[in-house]
This record gives sequence, structure tokens and C-alpha cells, in this order.
Amino acid sequence: MARRILRNIHLLSKKSPEAGLPPGTVVYVGEKKKEKVSLELIDYTKGSFVRKNISKVENALPFKEKPTITWLNITGIHDTEIIAKVGKYFRIHPLVREDIANTKQRPKVEDFDRYLFLVLKMIIYDERKKEIRPEQISFIIGPNFVISFQERRGDVFDPIRNRLSQGKGKIRRMGTDYLAYSLIDAIVDHYFTILEHLGEKIENMEDTVLKEPHPELLDRIHKMKRDMVYLRKSVWPLREVLSKLQRRDSPLIKKSTEIYLGDLYDHTIQVIDQIEAYRDTVTGLIDVYMSSVSNKMNEIMKVLTIFAAIFIPLTFVAGVYGMNFEHMPELDWRYGYYTVWGVMVLIGTSMLMYFRRKEWL
Amino acid sequence: MARRILRNIHLLSKKSPEAGLPPGTVVYVGEKKKEKVSLELIDYTKGSFVRKNISKVENALPFKEKPTITWLNITGIHDTEIIAKVGKYFRIHPLVREDIANTKQRPKVEDFDRYLFLVLKMIIYDERKKEIRPEQISFIIGPNFVISFQERRGDVFDPIRNRLSQGKGKIRRMGTDYLAYSLIDAIVDHYFTILEHLGEKIENMEDTVLKEPHPELLDRIHKMKRDMVYLRKSVWPLREVLSKLQRRDSPLIKKSTEIYLGDLYDHTIQVIDQIEAYRDTVTGLIDVYMSSVSNKMNEIMKVLTIFAAIFIPLTFVAGVYGMNFEHMPELDWRYGYYTVWGVMVLIGTSMLMYFRRKEWL
Amino acid sequence: MARRILRNIHLLSKKSPEAGLPPGTVVYVGEKKKEKVSLELIDYTKGSFVRKNISKVENALPFKEKPTITWLNITGIHDTEIIAKVGKYFRIHPLVREDIANTKQRPKVEDFDRYLFLVLKMIIYDERKKEIRPEQISFIIGPNFVISFQERRGDVFDPIRNRLSQGKGKIRRMGTDYLAYSLIDAIVDHYFTILEHLGEKIENMEDTVLKEPHPELLDRIHKMKRDMVYLRKSVWPLREVLSKLQRRDSPLIKKSTEIYLGDLYDHTIQVIDQIEAYRDTVTGLIDVYMSSVSNKMNEIMKVLTIFAAIFIPLTFVAGVYGMNFEHMPELDWRYGYYTVWGVMVLIGTSMLMYFRRKEWL
Amino acid sequence: MARRILRNIHLLSKKSPEAGLPPGTVVYVGEKKKEKVSLELIDYTKGSFVRKNISKVENALPFKEKPTITWLNITGIHDTEIIAKVGKYFRIHPLVREDIANTKQRPKVEDFDRYLFLVLKMIIYDERKKEIRPEQISFIIGPNFVISFQERRGDVFDPIRNRLSQGKGKIRRMGTDYLAYSLIDAIVDHYFTILEHLGEKIENMEDTVLKEPHPELLDRIHKMKRDMVYLRKSVWPLREVLSKLQRRDSPLIKKSTEIYLGDLYDHTIQVIDQIEAYRDTVTGLIDVYMSSVSNKMNEIMKVLTIFAAIFIPLTFVAGVYGMNFEHMPELDWRYGYYTVWGVMVLIGTSMLMYFRRKEWL
Amino acid sequence: MARRILRNIHLLSKKSPEAGLPPGTVVYVGEKKKEKVSLELIDYTKGSFVRKNISKVENALPFKEKPTITWLNITGIHDTEIIAKVGKYFRIHPLVREDIANTKQRPKVEDFDRYLFLVLKMIIYDERKKEIRPEQISFIIGPNFVISFQERRGDVFDPIRNRLSQGKGKIRRMGTDYLAYSLIDAIVDHYFTILEHLGEKIENMEDTVLKEPHPELLDRIHKMKRDMVYLRKSVWPLREVLSKLQRRDSPLIKKSTEIYLGDLYDHTIQVIDQIEAYRDTVTGLIDVYMSSVSNKMNEIMKVLTIFAAIFIPLTFVAGVYGMNFEHMPELDWRYGYYTVWGVMVLIGTSMLMYFRRKEWL
Repeated sequence: MARRILRNIHLLSKKSPEAGLPPGTVVYVGEKKKEKVSLELIDYTKGSFVRKNISKVENALPFKEKPTITWLNITGIHDTEIIAKVGKYFRIHPLVREDIANTKQRPKVEDFDRYLFLVLKMIIYDERKKEIRPEQISFIIGPNFVISFQERRGDVFDPIRNRLSQGKGKIRRMGTDYLAYSLIDAIVDHYFTILEHLGEKIENMEDTVLKEPHPELLDRIHKMKRDMVYLRKSVWPLREVLSKLQRRDSPLIKKSTEIYLGDLYDHTIQVIDQIEAYRDTVTGLIDVYMSSVSNKMNEIMKVLTIFAAIFIPLTFVAGVYGMNFEHMPELDWRYGYYTVWGVMVLIGTSMLMYFRRKEWL
Repeated sequence: MARRILRNIHLLSKKSPEAGLPPGTVVYVGEKKKEKVSLELIDYTKGSFVRKNISKVENALPFKEKPTITWLNITGIHDTEIIAKVGKYFRIHPLVREDIANTKQRPKVEDFDRYLFLVLKMIIYDERKKEIRPEQISFIIGPNFVISFQERRGDVFDPIRNRLSQGKGKIRRMGTDYLAYSLIDAIVDHYFTILEHLGEKIENMEDTVLKEPHPELLDRIHKMKRDMVYLRKSVWPLREVLSKLQRRDSPLIKKSTEIYLGDLYDHTIQVIDQIEAYRDTVTGLIDVYMSSVSNKMNEIMKVLTIFAAIFIPLTFVAGVYGMNFEHMPELDWRYGYYTVWGVMVLIGTSMLMYFRRKEWL
Repeated sequence: MARRILRNIHLLSKKSPEAGLPPGTVVYVGEKKKEKVSLELIDYTKGSFVRKNISKVENALPFKEKPTITWLNITGIHDTEIIAKVGKYFRIHPLVREDIANTKQRPKVEDFDRYLFLVLKMIIYDERKKEIRPEQISFIIGPNFVISFQERRGDVFDPIRNRLSQGKGKIRRMGTDYLAYSLIDAIVDHYFTILEHLGEKIENMEDTVLKEPHPELLDRIHKMKRDMVYLRKSVWPLREVLSKLQRRDSPLIKKSTEIYLGDLYDHTIQVIDQIEAYRDTVTGLIDVYMSSVSNKMNEIMKVLTIFAAIFIPLTFVAGVYGMNFEHMPELDWRYGYYTVWGVMVLIGTSMLMYFRRKEWL
Repeated sequence: MARRILRNIHLLSKKSPEAGLPPGTVVYVGEKKKEKVSLELIDYTKGSFVRKNISKVENALPFKEKPTITWLNITGIHDTEIIAKVGKYFRIHPLVREDIANTKQRPKVEDFDRYLFLVLKMIIYDERKKEIRPEQISFIIGPNFVISFQERRGDVFDPIRNRLSQGKGKIRRMGTDYLAYSLIDAIVDHYFTILEHLGEKIENMEDTVLKEPHPELLDRIHKMKRDMVYLRKSVWPLREVLSKLQRRDSPLIKKSTEIYLGDLYDHTIQVIDQIEAYRDTVTGLIDVYMSSVSNKMNEIMKVLTIFAAIFIPLTFVAGVYGMNFEHMPELDWRYGYYTVWGVMVLIGTSMLMYFRRKEWL
Repeated sequence: MARRILRNIHLLSKKSPEAGLPPGTVVYVGEKKKEKVSLELIDYTKGSFVRKNISKVENALPFKEKPTITWLNITGIHDTEIIAKVGKYFRIHPLVREDIANTKQRPKVEDFDRYLFLVLKMIIYDERKKEIRPEQISFIIGPNFVISFQERRGDVFDPIRNRLSQGKGKIRRMGTDYLAYSLIDAIVDHYFTILEHLGEKIENMEDTVLKEPHPELLDRIHKMKRDMVYLRKSVWPLREVLSKLQRRDSPLIKKSTEIYLGDLYDHTIQVIDQIEAYRDTVTGLIDVYMSSVSNKMNEIMKVLTIFAAIFIPLTFVAGVYGMNFEHMPELDWRYGYYTVWGVMVLIGTSMLMYFRRKEWL
């Protein structure tokens, strides 16, 4: 459990090494990695499409000046030198460079006139570790280029790549704002997939909680609730980001794109609503769990009480006739023994009837 | 339980197949169905009334140009081709076409100048399955036509159809805005019927919870609470929708209709208030359930304690005189046995009196 | 319990029979009644005062045209024909007529230029049934008339009638707005009486909960909490109503009356604050109840444990010397029996001391 | 307990006798009292200072016309005639007179152009009764006079009196607004003293709750929580009052005083923050209490279980050899008795080891 | 525990000694201290850097007039004379002087045209006492000087001092607003370090709570929750402070610094989000704790019930054959004893199987 929570904590907390550095210093904040950073460049117009992996940021510069739309996707942000270079060539504000490398950002949008800067959280379900993993993704949206920074290989943009290469839909006819919209749309669409997955898990827990309220389930419910808290924290600010984007008078966002952003905004609200509803449900599950445990205890108590209440009086009766008094007339009776048995059977059955009437049996 | 929750989850979650498609693609998101889509056309003026089922969207086109009011009700949205055709003939924005087919929309209103687009949730009580079922319903409101899309057969619009055919009230004298208002009014009125039904269920649970707090009841309370959460999610945005409709300067909404929309808004607030009040009550029921279980356990404990506390000392006394010591003077006493019985009766009755004083009996 | 909750549910839910009727149809929604509707007419100026019961709405018409202030109080709204007549003669909007007859309205104010329409909830404590009963009251405030509709006989307006007849205070010198203010003031004043009553009930519950946490008390706490929820729902919208009345530029509300409305607004806030404080207190009581039950169980457990822990070892000792072995030297000892008694007393007292040290005794 | 809560209820609820009286009638609402009302008059300029007790309101009139600052402090509001007289001589609105006498007001400020009217709650710790007591205090702030009304003897204004008489600070050089500010400041400062006192009580409860969770403590926690609710209700509206005072364009508040009011506003926020923090802490304490009780029960259960689990099997063994069968070979063994003892010691010690391994010992 | 909470209470409560003093009196409110106040002066331009400790406030005056940027850091605010002197020489408003000495301020910013006044809370982790310690820090930001007041030795400004002395970054080229920003940034950065520390503690508690739910852990959870409440109270107002600073039209804040303040604002939101998420998690932990204790109790109950239910019937059987009746045929059977043993083994094993089927074993 320790490792998972640490990851979550790190998600939003700047690491101490950085504390105290001058603002604007590009410092990678995240898990240490050795992986090589990969740069993918897609350049297109209505009629053309180029896609290639480049080895150096400098290779992207020729595309920068061309009127074509260029999407530079940088995978890996631990190599701060590459961010610094991009910052230099594309004249990005130092604080933006710092934010890109710091994976603990809150989703936000900032308008620098020449370009927009966006930070989002992509949620990935890690099949191998069976856990949800947030990943920071930053966008720089210029008049004819979009630069995206993601933490590691594996994203949700393949459908966009396909639509671009095949010229499906109107994406090739639109500008960088539509491209940016499509990328954010892909991220938000993926939230729904993640939610569906969580929904199934919650449903399983609901099925189990009444039947087998074992402590391990409690642990799972608690973790699910905590995951909801962190998920909410990742998605909630996105609402504000999209609302700002829509209202913003930036010339980078065309009027025709606004309706798409409105649609995206609606979807984000849906995601937040769903997270809230799940959180309510999961919180309720803890109550159900506790009641379920109480019910189990009740059942145990009943068994104990039934056994004790039936056999303790009987044992007492047996004890009485085990006494060694000289003068105990019953002991000499012909049918004393059988009478006692009769009495004991009577006591036992009346107890059973009493418990049946109380519906304990 | 699994199926119900799945349905609820699906209500708001886009299915993964769709994720990644270009925006504006009309994809049906919902349960797979084979049912044939039915198209019902109602055309009226103050003096005339025509109602017929048509087989093709094209059959509705002649009515489109006429100055009469036309209501085209399409039942079944799984046939995306029909939505596409309507979209083409009535020049509907691609995103709207997509939203109609996607049954996971949040209630909303959008103004496209030439027409208004509305998405609502109709709540149906399924008598057969004994459960509440949300159903998405979309409206396109033009200057002389209203197009409605519903998921399946069975709606709450029959009174409207009757009023239209019989010319009762002023509905035939008013425009499309009044028709749209009447349709939404029918949906909201039906919410009250549903609430009444839920109110009776809650009342039953309140009656049962103190008498028989069995685990199955806990499950029912939990489910009722979850239903409230989802119901609230369906109705809450409607408030905003109606408030927007009222404030909107669309020429499609006439001034005379505004007061009706205001009335509708008040009703929606009432529905939301009632849902909130129910939710509070149901949440409180879980506390009552848990206390009730604790009380049961107390009762069991009392029975156990009374039996144990009375008979354990008596058994001890009997055990003492069952010892086989050579020298036990009491054993030889003439009335030893009867004395011991006396002592035991004394102990027993004083225990009983003690418990009576403690009000355990 | 069932009947009470039903009443509460009905308070806000439209009954299904009505669902589907054309808007503006006057349909009585409430308990069926046979009582005859009574019409009371009060007409006054600074110098004159007339009060009489009239049998027909038409009898009030002569007063309508006079410059005197006329208050027409109609008790009983199940006779929808009377409402329809009032509507016709005083030219009231059809939706208003519908709202008057529907006792499930939320408190609200609506401005129709020629008149204001107000819906409020009067809370009556029913001495006979020992329960709180909300009753809807509607006002139509015109330039020289006020029409009030109440559900049944028995209201809180007697002091106003007295002040009017005796010419006390300035009520006879003021207009319809001041009359309306006085009537609402009487309703809000009565809320305080009701709150005082509830406060005493809560206080009783607080006194009882620690001493005798019986299940019936839990039921009462739960019901009190639910009553608070419904009470809050009745009063909360009143705040908005009064705030709207104050801000409204209706010529029907004179500037001199505004300060009185401000005072009324303050009182309403006080009522809401008090309800909230009560709700918090009652919610806290459930926790106290549950802890109190746990404490009781603890006490029972202690008694059981003390008995079991003292006598079970002693019984064991007695059991040992009840064994029938040939060779048990202790049995032949001269003072064996007395020694065993000594040992048993020793065990018993040391157990008692142990429990005393643990503060269980 | 009953008396305390009643007091709290009365704090905000108008008593029924008043309900129904014409607005503006001065009716004392509070505990009945016989104490004579005392009137204290302080009159000062930069250079002069007069302080005397006067017997009639009329005696204050000469000071009213003088340009000096006059502070008339009236202790006791049950003599409504005095309020009526002040109202007449100083031309105070009838509703204000009513509010002064009604001790259930919510803190508020009202601007009557010629004067400001303020209602506040002074919180006094009653050393004798060991409880907190709210007391209503009203201010009428005119251009050259301040009139204060308090319920009973004993206030927090002595430091102000001293500063005035000794000419310390700048209070003698400033106007009535600064005097009013100083008085309110004294009240708010006293809130901090009260909070400190409550803080110590909470701290004591925190120390006790884990060690001795007795029911009486639960009662104290519940009362403390309720006190927080009522305290919050008394202080919360003060925030609004001060914010209104600052923003108000009344010529009675000079610009130089505004910064002091701002400071006061900050202090009020601090008080509210602290109350909220205390409330959270106290609410948490109830959870700790309940867990603590559960822990105690666990401990009792362990003792019971250990005794039962060790001695019940041993008693069974002894019982076996207490049977009277003819043919029981063990009974005749030479070392049978000792063997049985060995077996019993073995069983006992292995049980003890089992419980030790489970960490129950 | 008492000392810690007292500290927290004092954090926001003014001490009674002060209550009643004229506003503007500089009174130190905090722990009594004897430490000598130390004054550190840093004076720099782009090209120069001077740092020295001065013994008197007067020594700083020559720097005040120079156009260089001067940072005067005063450690220790218990010597109110020094604050008074600074107030006099730098012409600071009396209320500001009072606020500096009063360590219970809420974070705030005030604009006095010639200078800005800021109060913040620095959170220090005291390694020795193993606890978090809030410390008030105030800033006076003038056109060419910044004066900071901190409570005691040990701050988070060393990186700033280094950057200033080494001329790293652009800090030496910027004005007092950037210096102030850097200082606040250092404080906020330190919050993240503190959060990381708390995160690890929470993680430890999560690991422990299911395994060993001992009462001491409950105490730790409760304290952690309370710490969260107080931490939130310290950080929450900072958000408002920074938002005001950004919006303010003070000429002291240059446009170029605004983007840095915006960044700082984002970080503060992150801190608040994280505190909220931690608080939710910790609150959830109490539920887990209580369920965990219930589970333990269940386990104890099971052991008790198994022992009791197995051995009580067996003991009864033994008791029966320990009776001394004359006529008990079984006693004379040849294999009676063995038969009874067989019966008892049968009973025992069937009980065990029953419990295994119930999954209690």
C-alpha cells in the first residue's frame, strides 16, 4: 500500500530538493528514469501529412516557420535539457518550462498571448499493476504548432493519429485549436473508460459486502474511496480550465471551435457527477460493511446464547443429583433417573421454543 | 444487483468503442436493440389536426415547409441512419446528431439560433421489473416543428396527444414553444408520480427497520439511497436548463410562454427538494438500522447474562456438595439437602430481583 | 407512522390524477373534504370597519370597486368553482388559479403588475393529534384588496382581526401592502411558537437519551429529525420570497412598508437558524443514543464476565474433588473440605479485587 | 440541563405572548426581572470628562443638544417605559424600540440616516453557574451620542470607561463612531477570552476520553458541541454586520475609523474560524469516545473469553472422572489422579500460550 | 497533549491581558521569551551585496534613504520596543504595529499606499519535539525596503540569502516585490515538504490500522485529523491574500511580478487540495479503525462461542452420569463408559464441523 499512496502524494507535492531553487529553474520532479526521450513530429495540411520520429529538437525548427500545422509530441520530461531547448526555440516563459517538468501541477490554462499553456491529467489504467496511474500532460498551443509533453510511452492519442493520417473527419481542415480540442477530447473520453472499470469494481464490492464482510474488503473499500478523492482532485480543475478556454478572447481559439469546447465541458461535468455519485456509493458501502459485521456478531452471539441457555440449566440439574447428601429421597425413587431425564428434555424443548418464538432459530 | 448498477453506470459513461472516433460521428450508445424505429407525425393548426405513423423521414418533409405546427416523434435511436437523415433534412449541427444517439447525456439546452436543442431524462417505473428506469429524450424545437427522440416505446405524452386531437385547452392555438413546454411539463409531472411511489417504499422501510432489522433490509436501504443519488443526478441539471430557457432571448420562446416555464421551474425545484428530503431520511434510516441491530444484540446479551448469572452460581453450589471428601458435615445433616435447595432458591430469586431492578427483565 | 409520512409526501407531490391535464386547469390537490367553503369579508378605512360572512363570491364585488381596503378571506379550497369565480371577477391568471388549489406549492411570490401572488406555508400544531401540520395559504394582493385562501378553519390571524376592528396600531391607516405584511408577520410569529414547542420536545429527548436509551426513543429522534427536514423545506423558500418582495419595484409595495418587510426577513432568518441548530442537535442525539446503547451493553458484559470469571474456576475446583479416583489423598485429609473452601474463598476474593482494580465494580 | 437549553432556545425564539401584537409595540421578551434599571451617562470632549448615574431619561436631554460626545448606557431592558421614553426623546423608529426590548434578535445593523442601530451578542462566562451566557446589547449611534442597552449588570466595558476617564489613547479625540468601535472591540476581545476557556475544557475532554470514556463525559461532549452550535449562531452574523458597516456610506462613520472596523472584521473571522475548528475537534471526539467504548468492551470480552476457554475444558475433564460408571479403568490406576492433574495443567498452559500468541494477554 | 493543543489554541486567540487595551497598543501575545532580538540587514543592487547583523534599529536608517533594495529581517517580536521603533522610523500605522506583535493573526494583506502589510504563517517541523509548529511572519513591503518579522531563530529563507549573495537567478535585478514574492515562495515551498512528511505518517497509519487497531493509534489518528484542521486554517486565507495581491493596483507590485504571484497562487491551491484530500483520508481511517476493532471483537466472540458450544454440552453429559441415582442402568453396562466417550467425541466433532461450515474456523 505504501508505494501506491506515495505515488499519490508525490502527484501533488513538490519534492524538497526543489524547494529553495530560484523560480523558473527547470527541475524534473517525478520518479527517476533513464528512458530516452522520444520526439514525434506530425505535420499536416488539408492535403498533406508527414509523420516522423526526430532525434533532436532542432530537427523540428524548419516546420515551425511553415504555415502547415505541426504537432510535436515529446514523450519523457525527465530530460530537462530538451524542455529548455524547446523553451528557447519557441520562446516559452521560464515558469512554463518549470511547470512542464514538475509533474505535480494542478490542471490549468494560462494565456501568454502568443501561445496558450495547458496542463492536464491523463488517467491510465495500468493492466500490469492493476491500478490507476495519473500522468501529467502539458500542451503549448501556438498559431501553427501544438507541442505536447507526456511522462512516458503509451497514450490515448492513437485515434487522433489515425484520423490525421487517413484524413478522416474534418481534423485536417481545421487549425491548431481543433487539434488541441481533439487531444483533450481523447483524454476526457478515456476518463469514461476508466470510470466504467471502477464502476464494475464497486459493483463487485456491493455484491460481496453483505455476504462476506471480511477485513480485506474493508481495506479495498477504503482504498477505492481514497482513489475517488484523488481522481476528483485530478478532474475537478479541468472544468475550470475548459470554462476559461471557452470564455477567453484569445485569437488562438476560433469561434467555430467554441461549440466543441462546450461539448467537452459538458462531458467533464458528467465525469465529475459520476465520480461524486461513486464516492457517495462507496462511502455508503462502509456503513453497510459495518452493519454487516454487526449482523455477523449477532449471529455468533445467538449461537452462544442458545447453547449456554439450554445446557447451563441442564448441567445444574445434573449437578444437583450428583450431590452426596445422605438424605436425598429422589435418588432412591424407582424412576427417579427417568423423571430427571424427562424434566431435562422438558427444559431443553421449552428453551428451544422460546428461542424460536424470538426468531433466533 | 449487478445488472441494475451497470445500467446506472452506463447511463452516464460513454462506451469505450466510441472513444477515439471523430467528434460529430453519430454512434448509438446504449443497449443493443433490434426493434424497428417508429415515426409518429402530428400536424395541427387551431382548426386542423392530422396524426399518422410514417415509414420514412422523407414523408415528413412536405410538412416541414407548411406554416402548420408539426411534431415528429421518433421512437428508437439505435438506427443512426434515421438520425443522420433528420440531421441532413433539418440542417442539424453534427454534434447535436451525436448527442441524440448517445443516451448518456446530461440534461442540457443549446441554442443554435434556427432551433433549440434540449436533452432531458424521462423517468419510467417499469412495472414488470419493479424498478426505475431513466430514458433519454431529446427535443429539437424549430419555428414550426418540434422533433422528439425517445429510446423506446411507452412515454408520458398521451395526455398531450389527447389534448391536441380534441383541441382541449389552448395548446392548438399556441406555437412550438408551448408544445415543447407541454411535453416537458408532462415529463416533470411524471416525476411526482415516481416520487410518490418512492415515498411509499421509504415509509415501508421506516415501519420495518425498528421491528425487523434484517440484513436484506439494509441492502434495500443502501439501494434506495443509491437510487436517490442517481435520480438527483438526472433531475438536478434540469433546473439549470429551465432557468436558461427562461432567460434566453431566443425568438423561438415567446413572452407569453415564459410564465409557464417559470411555473415548470418551480415544479422542478419541488422535485429536487423532495429528493433531497428523501435522501436525508434514507441516510438517517441507516443510523436507525444500526442502532436497531445494537438493540437486538443487547437483548441477546441480556438473555445470556441472566441465564449465566443465575445458573453458574447454582451449579457451583451443587458442585460443592458433589465433592467426595470424607469429612463433609453438611452431607450427614438430616435436612442438608433441603437446606441447600433453600439456599439455591434464595440465590436464584435474589439474582432475578437484581435483574428486575436493573430493568433487564 | 405511515399516515404522517404520507401527509408529508403529499405536501409536495402532485397527485397522479392531475398529471396530464392542460396547464391552468383548476384541480384541487389535497385530502378530500365535504366542508362548506366559508367567505369572510373585512372592509375598512381609517374611520370605518365592516366585517361579515358572505355566502357567494358575487357579494364581494361591490367592495371591489370602492377605494376602501377589502380583505376577502376564503377558508377551503376544495371547491374549485369558487376559485374559478374569484379568478374571473378579479381577472387572475389561470396558472395562479391552478396554484391556489394545489396545496403542494413551494412558497413563492409572483408579480403580475396588477397584483402580487404569494404562496406561504402556515404551520399549525394540532393539539388533538399531537403533531405539526403544514397548511398552504395563498395571497392575492391588489391595490385595494387582499384575497387570502386557506385550507381549513383555524388560522393565526385573530390578532389582526382584533387590531382591525379596534383600530389599534396604524394598520387601519395603511394600505394593502401593510395588511399583507401583518398577515405574513402573524404566520412567521407563529413559527416561533412552534419552534418553542419543538425545543421542549428536544430537551426532553436530551434528558432521556442517556438514562433510558430504549428503541422507541430512537424512533422519536428519527422522526424529529425528519420533521426538521420537512420544516426547513417549508420555511427556507420564504427567505427568498421576502427578499424578492423587498427588492421588487412593484408600485403595490410602498417605501414605508419596506422596513417592515426587512424586519420580517430578519425574523425568517432567525427561524431558519434555529431550525438548523435544532437539526444539528438532533443529529448529535443519534450519536449519543448509540453510545448510550454501547454503554449499556458494556455494563451487561461486565456483569456476565464477573459472574463467569468468579464461578467458573470455583466450579472447576469443586469438580476436581467430585472425581471418583481411588487414590485422591486430599479426600481423606481431616480438614480437606475446609481447606478447599478456604482456597475457593481466596480465589473468589482475589477475582473481586482484580475487577475492582479494573474499575468494573 | 433543561434550564440551560431553554435559555438557549429562548435566545432566539419570540415568546408566544408577543405573537399577534401590532408591530412596533415595545414588549420585553426575556426572563422576568424586578431589578431597577440603571442609567449611566458619560459625557466627554478632548478636554473634559463627566460620568454620573442619572435617575431619569429626562436628565440626559441637556447633553443631547451639546456638541460634546455623550454615551448613555442603560442597564436593564425589562422596563419598557424607559425604552419608550428614549425612543420618543431621540426620535427612534418604533421597530427599533421593539427590537431593543426583544432579547432574541439576531446581530444586525440598520441605517436610519440620522442614526445607526446595531444589535450584538455579548458572551459572558458566569463564574457562579459555570456556564456561558449570551446577553443582547443594542447600540444607537448618533452624530454626537451613543446609547447602549444591556440586559443586566456586569459588562466588558470597564477598560473603555477607564480610557475615557484617564484620556488614554486617542478615544477622547475621536467621534461617536470610534467610541462605538471601541465598545464592539471590547465585546469581540472578550470572545477570545471565552474561546480560550472553552479550549481548555476541550483539551481536558481530549485527555479524558481515551482513559475513562464514562457516559457522563459523553454528555459533556454533546453539550459542548451544542454550545458550539449556539455560539456560532451568535457570532456568525456579526461578520456581516461589520462588513456592512465598513461598506456603508453613512456620514456617521468617518473614513479614519474604517481601518479599525476592518481590523475588527479580521478578528471576527478569527473567532469564527476558531469556533469551526473547535466544532470539528469536538465532533471528532464523539468518534473517539465510541471507539474508546468499543475498546473497553473488547477488553472485557477478552477476560471473559480467557476464563471461559481455560476453565470450561478443565471442568469437563473433572466432570468425566466424576461419572459413576462401574467400569472406568482410569479410576483405579495408581497415579490416575495425578495424571489427570497433569493433563489439566497441560491444557491450561497451552490455552494460555495460545492467547499470548494472539496478543490477548 | 495538553501543551500541544494549548499552543494551537493560542495560535488564534488573543490573550486576556490584552483585552481592553486601547487599539494600536503594541502588546506581545505569545510564549514569554528572554531571547535577545536579532536584526539582520541585507542590502543589494544588481552589482552590490551587503549583509550584516545590526544591534539597533537606528543602524538600518542610513539604508532606508538609499535607492538600493534593503531587507531588514527581525527575529523575535517579544521586544515590543523594537517594533515601536521600526513603526516610528518607517511611519507604520499603529494597528500594523499591534498586529506584528500579536502572533494570533490570520494571514492577510493590507494596502497602506506607501507600503503593503502582509501576515503569513510559516510551518516548521520541529525535529526535536517531533511536531509541527506554526510561526507567524509579517512583511512590510515598501518601494525600496522589505521588513520581515519572525518569531524565533530558524527560517526557510536560507536559499534566498544564498541566491542574493551569489547573484544567482534574476533576484538581484528585480525590485522589492520580487524579493517579497521569493520569500513567500520559500514559505509555500516548505508547506510541500511538511505535507510530504504528513503523507508518510498517514501512510504508516493506513498500514497499521487493519493489523493492530490499538487505542493509541486512535489517538494518533484523532490528533492527525485535528492537525489537518489547524493546518487548513493556517493556509486557507493565504489563497485570498495572494489573489488580492494579484488584483491589487498597488504601484508596489510590478506587472512582471504578477505572473509569479499567479504561479504562487496555483501552488497554494495545490497545498489546500492536498490538505483536503489528507483530511478525507484521515476521516475515513477512523471508520476503518472502528470496523477493525469490530472485527477483532468478532474474532474473540468466535473463540468464546466455539469453546462454550463444544464443552458445555459435553460437561452436561458428564454431569448426567455423575448423578447418584440408585437406578441408572447405563452405569452398570459393560461398555457404558466407552459408549459415553464415543457419544462425546461425536458431539464434539459435529460441533466442529458445524463451525467449519459456518466458516468460523
